[in-house]
Amino acid sequence: MAAKHIILPADEMPRQWYNILADIKMNPPLGPDGNPINPQDLAPVFPMNLIEQEVSTERWIDIPEPVLDILRIWRPSPLTRATALEKALGTPARIYYKNESVSPPGSHKPNTAVPQAYYNKMFGIERITTETGAGQWGSALSFACQQFGIECKVFMVRVSFDQKPYRKAMMETWGGRCVPSPSTETKAGRDALAKDPDTPGSLGTAISEAIEAAISDTTGKTRYALGSVLNHVMLHQTIIGLETKKQLAMVGEYPDVVIGCAGGGSNFAGLAFPFVCDKINGKDLAIYPVEPAACPTLTRSPFVYDHGDTARYTPLLPMHSLGHDFVPPPIHAGGLRYHGMAPTVSQLVDEGILEPRSVVQSKCYEAALLWARTEGFIPAPETAHAIALTVEEAKKAKEEGKEKVIVVGFSGHGLLDLGAYEKFLSGELHDVPMTDAQVVDAGKILAGHPTPQHLKST
Amino acid sequence: MAAKHIILPADEMPRQWYNILADIKMNPPLGPDGNPINPQDLAPVFPMNLIEQEVSTERWIDIPEPVLDILRIWRPSPLTRATALEKALGTPARIYYKNESVSPPGSHKPNTAVPQAYYNKMFGIERITTETGAGQWGSALSFACQQFGIECKVFMVRVSFDQKPYRKAMMETWGGRCVPSPSTETKAGRDALAKDPDTPGSLGTAISEAIEAAISDTTGKTRYALGSVLNHVMLHQTIIGLETKKQLAMVGEYPDVVIGCAGGGSNFAGLAFPFVCDKINGKDLAIYPVEPAACPTLTRSPFVYDHGDTARYTPLLPMHSLGHDFVPPPIHAGGLRYHGMAPTVSQLVDEGILEPRSVVQSKCYEAALLWARTEGFIPAPETAHAIALTVEEAKKAKEEGKEKVIVVGFSGHGLLDLGAYEKFLSGELHDVPMTDAQVVDAGKILAGHPTPQHLKST
Repeated sequence: MAAKHIILPADEMPRQWYNILADIKMNPPLGPDGNPINPQDLAPVFPMNLIEQEVSTERWIDIPEPVLDILRIWRPSPLTRATALEKALGTPARIYYKNESVSPPGSHKPNTAVPQAYYNKMFGIERITTETGAGQWGSALSFACQQFGIECKVFMVRVSFDQKPYRKAMMETWGGRCVPSPSTETKAGRDALAKDPDTPGSLGTAISEAIEAAISDTTGKTRYALGSVLNHVMLHQTIIGLETKKQLAMVGEYPDVVIGCAGGGSNFAGLAFPFVCDKINGKDLAIYPVEPAACPTLTRSPFVYDHGDTARYTPLLPMHSLGHDFVPPPIHAGGLRYHGMAPTVSQLVDEGILEPRSVVQSKCYEAALLWARTEGFIPAPETAHAIALTVEEAKKAKEEGKEKVIVVGFSGHGLLDLGAYEKFLSGELHDVPMTDAQVVDAGKILAGHPTPQHLKST
Repeated sequence: MAAKHIILPADEMPRQWYNILADIKMNPPLGPDGNPINPQDLAPVFPMNLIEQEVSTERWIDIPEPVLDILRIWRPSPLTRATALEKALGTPARIYYKNESVSPPGSHKPNTAVPQAYYNKMFGIERITTETGAGQWGSALSFACQQFGIECKVFMVRVSFDQKPYRKAMMETWGGRCVPSPSTETKAGRDALAKDPDTPGSLGTAISEAIEAAISDTTGKTRYALGSVLNHVMLHQTIIGLETKKQLAMVGEYPDVVIGCAGGGSNFAGLAFPFVCDKINGKDLAIYPVEPAACPTLTRSPFVYDHGDTARYTPLLPMHSLGHDFVPPPIHAGGLRYHGMAPTVSQLVDEGILEPRSVVQSKCYEAALLWARTEGFIPAPETAHAIALTVEEAKKAKEEGKEKVIVVGFSGHGLLDLGAYEKFLSGELHDVPMTDAQVVDAGKILAGHPTPQHLKST
């Protein structure tokens, strides 16, 4: 019998990240004047070493040794054959999952939190602000900052803050500080509260708060960190896909299908980009980012220039966006409640290299329950989106009688999301897919925004 | 640099459990008439195949293939060098931790839940009842029963049920059913509520409820499962120590000190017994079970014959006991709130082979916080007890300038116990060590109980 887990030897852990900017053409971010921004414009927000990484087009970028040292706490992560799920589905497909839930905060997020904390530390930064949706990113950054002796302040989207009280405790265990967003600590937060005192909050508003808190610190020792969307975040996450490729090679496999959930895009990109590189170079495979039907950025919204945050502190980024003012309904997959999408992922969708899918909440929990009852591990609500499509693809393989190889990103566990499972089991979770009218309405804020060029990387 | 994780190859996973009954002399359990019970007396409570295992004195017992198949979901578990903790303490000690938190329920408990569910299934049982303290055992049994298609009903100690709402959701995710104990579903529960309607509950009472629920099912298709104390539970857990020995051998190490937390004794025994075997055969090492100062079974109570549960449904077992009526204060390490201790562990303490230690709650969280901020992973409150002594031993090694090898059992993660961390961080947790008067008072119920013989295994 083949081993269930494919364990990459420690000395095979990747020493470089893969930078997709070497292989695709991108529209530049634009400033308030409509002209491409230059790196210096971002200096109040990010340390210059990360800005340089953000704009680099080098294909391979070395992972610093102190970063590798901390990644080794949980990396290389296992690639595991989902044999029990396969059996339950009676599918001829071979399903492999890359398990990023094994990190201390329980998700893929520390893959970028650790290098971001490191580069900030190297630049002399003493305090980092950020936002968090589900709480995965805030936890990961608190953990990473603790490792480098940096202060961490997290603005957590209120609906998730209320749904997941343990997240705050987790951040504090690692020395972070966490407040619900919108808060009264920033102008962006106060404005959002004035508009709707009962708002569930949104990632867009929380990002505004965190950026404002960083740039308004006059000592110059505070910077902001983003857990997704930007190029350097996608870059740091590619260690997932790079390990996966090595592990698949160990058992002589290559995927026909790659599946990952996508909120801002970093989990998806981390797994998928090393395979996208192959696809650009002629390899035939299907690559699916999966998003919630309640926040269908890739499947229902236009490819436009839009701001990454509600208060428009960020440059205009070329991306699929529901509009920077959009407040997604309070679904439990808080990490996927984002109005926009990483420009790189958006560009690849626009080019037809990626084929986005959306799933309603109930289908996700149904699939997650099947997963928990076969493979054992309880998936995060975000991860459940990828699992829902995996189950669908495995069933399709059965109908077609095809021995497909499916690789799915198990981006995080759901141990701090069990309240959502309880609601699902008691029939209290309802699906809230966006209607056509809502999509049109949400997009109104995009009127007059510039349109990115349609580029072709292949 | 040496690898941080020592990964045992999948084909090196132990195929047999180690049975300490082959190497130590034990006093027999006694029935209500004061005479040794015979296996048949236990038949209404456990399936006969498990009863046979309970009394076996074979040194090595084969692990059934279907059990191995499920254990492979997370086993072999990693043995990891706690390099960051060592560095923070500046100790010359080399600290290795055996990480049992990587299982789906997050602790060592499924190591025995899976075989127990399997043997019940083989015996034709369709429903298992049990109790749970912290919730780790109830979660593990729900998971295991799900794998074999058996119903699972869990009586959860009320204080833990209230402190840890996610545990119920976890059990339900795996198809288990969970009610707080004392409940009104059993006579034992109703009696406890009549005595004190506001009781926090105890493992002793919850065990009574679960046994009653099993033996009162007239179909004969229900049995009870215990997550600790009994010989077959210790047996199943020895896979922990057996793997650890192999992993240490891979890096040419052998422990000077072995540390595990002890509630009923199964986590501790699982790690320690394979080393106890060596100690009985002349090897020189220190082996420490660690318990809470609020429930100091091994360190403050006599070695007597006592019941395993409050309602006295179990036989009299030879063990260290605070008295079967004792209700420990509601500390957060619910898994260690048990009045008694496994007879095998008790016997080995009585013989001086094991050297028990107790720790107050605040010291545990202090050590757990240091662990989380160095090694990353957040320990369960139970595990924190072992970590507290590990830190103490590592500091001692520093004072003595000795390069000791310390092996500690990381029995579970604390991701469902973050409420306790929050309380600790906000200064709301208080130490409640037992006073001399309380020890005397608790022990009064033992008056007139038979006394076990003092035996000598070495």
